[in-house]
Amino acid sequence: MYHFRNDYSEGAHPKVLSALVETNLLSTPGYGQDEYCARAARLVRERFGCPEAAVHFLVGGTQANFTAISAFLRPWEAAVAVDTGHIAVHETGAVEARGHKVLTTPHENGKMTPGALQTLWDAHAAGDPGHMVLPKLLYLSDSTELGTIYTKAELTALRRLCDSLGMYLYLDGARLASALTAPGNDLSPEDLPGLCDAFTVGGTKNGLLFGECLVITNPALMPNFRYCLKQCGGMLAKGRLLGVQFAAVLENDLWLELGRHANRQAARLTQGLLEKGYPLYAPSPTNQVFPVVSKAKIRELEREFTFELTAPIDGSHDAIRLVTSWATPDEAVSALLKAL
Amino acid sequence: MYHFRNDYSEGAHPKVLSALVETNLLSTPGYGQDEYCARAARLVRERFGCPEAAVHFLVGGTQANFTAISAFLRPWEAAVAVDTGHIAVHETGAVEARGHKVLTTPHENGKMTPGALQTLWDAHAAGDPGHMVLPKLLYLSDSTELGTIYTKAELTALRRLCDSLGMYLYLDGARLASALTAPGNDLSPEDLPGLCDAFTVGGTKNGLLFGECLVITNPALMPNFRYCLKQCGGMLAKGRLLGVQFAAVLENDLWLELGRHANRQAARLTQGLLEKGYPLYAPSPTNQVFPVVSKAKIRELEREFTFELTAPIDGSHDAIRLVTSWATPDEAVSALLKAL
Amino acid sequence: MYHFRNDYSEGAHPKVLSALVETNLLSTPGYGQDEYCARAARLVRERFGCPEAAVHFLVGGTQANFTAISAFLRPWEAAVAVDTGHIAVHETGAVEARGHKVLTTPHENGKMTPGALQTLWDAHAAGDPGHMVLPKLLYLSDSTELGTIYTKAELTALRRLCDSLGMYLYLDGARLASALTAPGNDLSPEDLPGLCDAFTVGGTKNGLLFGECLVITNPALMPNFRYCLKQCGGMLAKGRLLGVQFAAVLENDLWLELGRHANRQAARLTQGLLEKGYPLYAPSPTNQVFPVVSKAKIRELEREFTFELTAPIDGSHDAIRLVTSWATPDEAVSALLKAL
Amino acid sequence: MYHFRNDYSEGAHPKVLSALVETNLLSTPGYGQDEYCARAARLVRERFGCPEAAVHFLVGGTQANFTAISAFLRPWEAAVAVDTGHIAVHETGAVEARGHKVLTTPHENGKMTPGALQTLWDAHAAGDPGHMVLPKLLYLSDSTELGTIYTKAELTALRRLCDSLGMYLYLDGARLASALTAPGNDLSPEDLPGLCDAFTVGGTKNGLLFGECLVITNPALMPNFRYCLKQCGGMLAKGRLLGVQFAAVLENDLWLELGRHANRQAARLTQGLLEKGYPLYAPSPTNQVFPVVSKAKIRELEREFTFELTAPIDGSHDAIRLVTSWATPDEAVSALLKAL
Repeated sequence: MYHFRNDYSEGAHPKVLSALVETNLLSTPGYGQDEYCARAARLVRERFGCPEAAVHFLVGGTQANFTAISAFLRPWEAAVAVDTGHIAVHETGAVEARGHKVLTTPHENGKMTPGALQTLWDAHAAGDPGHMVLPKLLYLSDSTELGTIYTKAELTALRRLCDSLGMYLYLDGARLASALTAPGNDLSPEDLPGLCDAFTVGGTKNGLLFGECLVITNPALMPNFRYCLKQCGGMLAKGRLLGVQFAAVLENDLWLELGRHANRQAARLTQGLLEKGYPLYAPSPTNQVFPVVSKAKIRELEREFTFELTAPIDGSHDAIRLVTSWATPDEAVSALLKAL
Repeated sequence: MYHFRNDYSEGAHPKVLSALVETNLLSTPGYGQDEYCARAARLVRERFGCPEAAVHFLVGGTQANFTAISAFLRPWEAAVAVDTGHIAVHETGAVEARGHKVLTTPHENGKMTPGALQTLWDAHAAGDPGHMVLPKLLYLSDSTELGTIYTKAELTALRRLCDSLGMYLYLDGARLASALTAPGNDLSPEDLPGLCDAFTVGGTKNGLLFGECLVITNPALMPNFRYCLKQCGGMLAKGRLLGVQFAAVLENDLWLELGRHANRQAARLTQGLLEKGYPLYAPSPTNQVFPVVSKAKIRELEREFTFELTAPIDGSHDAIRLVTSWATPDEAVSALLKAL
Repeated sequence: MYHFRNDYSEGAHPKVLSALVETNLLSTPGYGQDEYCARAARLVRERFGCPEAAVHFLVGGTQANFTAISAFLRPWEAAVAVDTGHIAVHETGAVEARGHKVLTTPHENGKMTPGALQTLWDAHAAGDPGHMVLPKLLYLSDSTELGTIYTKAELTALRRLCDSLGMYLYLDGARLASALTAPGNDLSPEDLPGLCDAFTVGGTKNGLLFGECLVITNPALMPNFRYCLKQCGGMLAKGRLLGVQFAAVLENDLWLELGRHANRQAARLTQGLLEKGYPLYAPSPTNQVFPVVSKAKIRELEREFTFELTAPIDGSHDAIRLVTSWATPDEAVSALLKAL
Repeated sequence: MYHFRNDYSEGAHPKVLSALVETNLLSTPGYGQDEYCARAARLVRERFGCPEAAVHFLVGGTQANFTAISAFLRPWEAAVAVDTGHIAVHETGAVEARGHKVLTTPHENGKMTPGALQTLWDAHAAGDPGHMVLPKLLYLSDSTELGTIYTKAELTALRRLCDSLGMYLYLDGARLASALTAPGNDLSPEDLPGLCDAFTVGGTKNGLLFGECLVITNPALMPNFRYCLKQCGGMLAKGRLLGVQFAAVLENDLWLELGRHANRQAARLTQGLLEKGYPLYAPSPTNQVFPVVSKAKIRELEREFTFELTAPIDGSHDAIRLVTSWATPDEAVSALLKAL
């Protein structure tokens, strides 16, 4: 059986696991107040070029999203996402459970556009204020749910619009390493602090046992964040586990190398699929590939490969999602290409 | 430096770590839908004698508490705890953040009594219904914040009162292994399902990297719990990490052996303290010891040992908290006894 | 100046005001526990043919909606509305502020269709349960935001679908009197209890100073509702004010006569508009009329009439909203028709 | 039957009712955006000497409290009240339902003291920040639940402590008119803006059909409050009803005259009770009197008078609550004194 189900099916990259094993019996203060977290935070600030940023480590992505968003917003303020956005669809209303509406607007290849954001804003700014929620935080993810990425120009245009509307820009980087190493990407890590009020750097999908790193660059959003972290269940008792792991992947840019590996395997898949004439449901340069496959073929593939269905296409075809990761071996891709 | 700061300062017990290392590169479905979680759940049901129970694994204790409590209660229903209760004091209002008041009543040696619960209930049942919250869930912990434990008779009396008041009984077992192996304990794991509507079995403080196991025995509280788990950020992507770890400590009752070890080290401390004439702030048969120590002595001890302050006693004395764990070596206790 | 701004611009119908004045100095128990509320509840149960229903009186519509919806749902359950639905757009995220997502689907003339509901349900029922909210309550309004009404067949089809999906059906009747007396309506008050789990009967827009009546017919949704009412700020101290007013409009079906008056004035407007060749933005048989008018004409009308803009149509035309009410005099309609 | 049940048993003072009747058929914009609300707000600013204050009108007291408190606080911040505080006991967890813990401390004659506040603060400021909620808003009421009042010196001391702790001071003035006209009061309306960040002026218990006026004097707490008002169900459609009523009682200080009347009747009761040798449960100079009465006498009184029980005293005595209001006639007091 070969696995293309997702990028969190395996445990940790060997270097991450080694770091955990080596530090296992040390005794440190809890809740992220240890030297490992301090060092990892320092490495993050250096790598992203934001020496003043507040850096927090959380266990998971849903947790990072709702904790940050609810820490940043007042009760009547809303997040804005594309209709495929993770917070809008696949987090069981976690943002709403903290009291905030998630407004959505149709996506373009999984991405938000300035035009869509402006239209949504205009609809909410009309009339006597107070009867509609106030759009206040733009939620993006890079790469997106459809594997697409933002160019520097696109992100800059959204940033400028957010500035003019008084909105925060929050970027969910659960798959940031894959996005930043994808063909066509022109964003560097150092660009993000200037373009975002806060962003996450994903670990769970990029070689850690678990872990998301939240980087807050807007000083107004920093005070007392640890209170919100604890209240939302995001303060890990043995917090150093997060620091140890993140430090391990930040050393020598291992995190980017892992993203690059996932992209390479995905690119091999994409090339093979196109050669064999499979249409793609969405054009993705990152580690998620969405071919349209006949139902008969899907049933055949399911005997040897794991993957998820993304969308029904017609009576006899579905779009499937093939995900590669730091752990995807060459032979898995070769076997899948052969079977297709 | 020897550490008595808490019972989550180190990583995982070697057997737990080995299990993680061995399974590291396997590929499994995410979110706890894997065979390791299934097996661990089966082991839990067997060990506690509750074949029909719903078993869920979560990362941390605060998360387990607020997820469970908010899944069980309707908006106007409240949890009841002693005034030292963890949910009442040390979880940054996480239960309130999910909308529920935590009513408190004075503790007796860290414990709830039927009399205190009845008094609180009576105060809330007086008058026209609807103007005060409805007490609906009794929150206990075993061992308590002061290291004390419930006897079977005490827990049974609270259960009966809950039944007569239509209340749920939820037991926070973050330190359950220590409680169940303490001198004076007459509760067995098999007693809990009949006495509680739900309870947790702590892993974080008992040899796991992280992990709490929530056991729901009241069928009315089971449906759709996974939705709440996800919404509260408690659904770990690589959920199997929890199953692997819990299975490792459930085998051959390692979890109880770890609790017993912590208790033995605490008992050595207690005996030594009493022999040296230190008064105890609270009488604890478990892994937390609370001696009253002069401030001068505290400053001296802090050079070689880590621990926390619990309460000021008088101008020249404080109560300190010494916590032992599965990882506390004999020589740490010996060194501390010598220094006292 | 003549007013077509909305149906809550004036105070109370003279009979309602008289009832308030007559009872002004009587002393009664507070919070709706008085004989006037008891009598009004009895009249509601009789009029709608639901002798077992729970009847509650609240001050306003937003309050009634979020109080009821949050009393009925568990944290992970969502309300479903059309994208023009009042709870989805114009209540400042009040339902989300109580923790629940409002899922939306495109409207058809302001109405929900079984097809749209089924599609939304299917999207949420796919895959591993727990990652998306659970659609649990269908929110409808009759009349709708576009003035349209549900036929008995349409409402019955939605009821059946709700039954098959395990969903509640909640009907917002802020403008129910207008809907039930509109040309083309074939629903009677007595039909509602069998088709809805709960519904409201609007007073604010139909001759009361303020007041919405919530009728709960599903016994599972009744217990402890008063707790939620109080918690949500909906328990009026001098609750009898609501009972007195509702009793006044229920006598001799004054509420329906007021709705009929509003509809008649709207029908005069509609007929005149069509005769003059104005297109209608939405076809409404009730007390809201939506003509498309040139911007120049709008500016002219604004000198003598009050009304709101609904939507831009093209560079030179907007759709405006003309609302009639129980208080709209003949001469206002005549003057407007003359000016158009 | 004579009524001492509460101060919201009757309708409106005749001047208030007249104002409503006179303006009944006028057509105004909704939601408090009308000239009557504008005028009432101006009168409030003048009367309290706070020309820059933001003034909002709400229907009820619970609504005003939770709307204001949740608008002012961030998720992890808590309100602090005495253990008899209305928000702590009698609002069905409305503040918690908006996500905020209400911390309590024992009262002294119904009042908060700087010592109690400092002690609570110190307990929450100890240790690693983030594990306990952050006390941020002091909730007081004047008069208190026990009818007592704050002197200017007492309120000033609490204000200074709040300043030093970075806390807001919010004063619930549901019975403010009675407090400000009580024997022993040395606070004037003009003192409140300088001592409070926000306060309410009660109407429901002082001659209005309903209505509380929220005055926000801290500019940081003003922006976007109307969004919160709407979200919390507090934006009355026919908002002018509130403006009309408040303007009526502000003219010629009718509001204070009504409070004075209630106090005078209460003082007659108190004097008579003391002369007859009844002990008082709490010393109140305002419109709530709390005599300790034998159960036999209570049963006798209940045949002719309405009132509430406050607390059991011993096997044969209870404390009862006798409330006077603007509407209490002389003969009611005389009859009660005779019957005692």
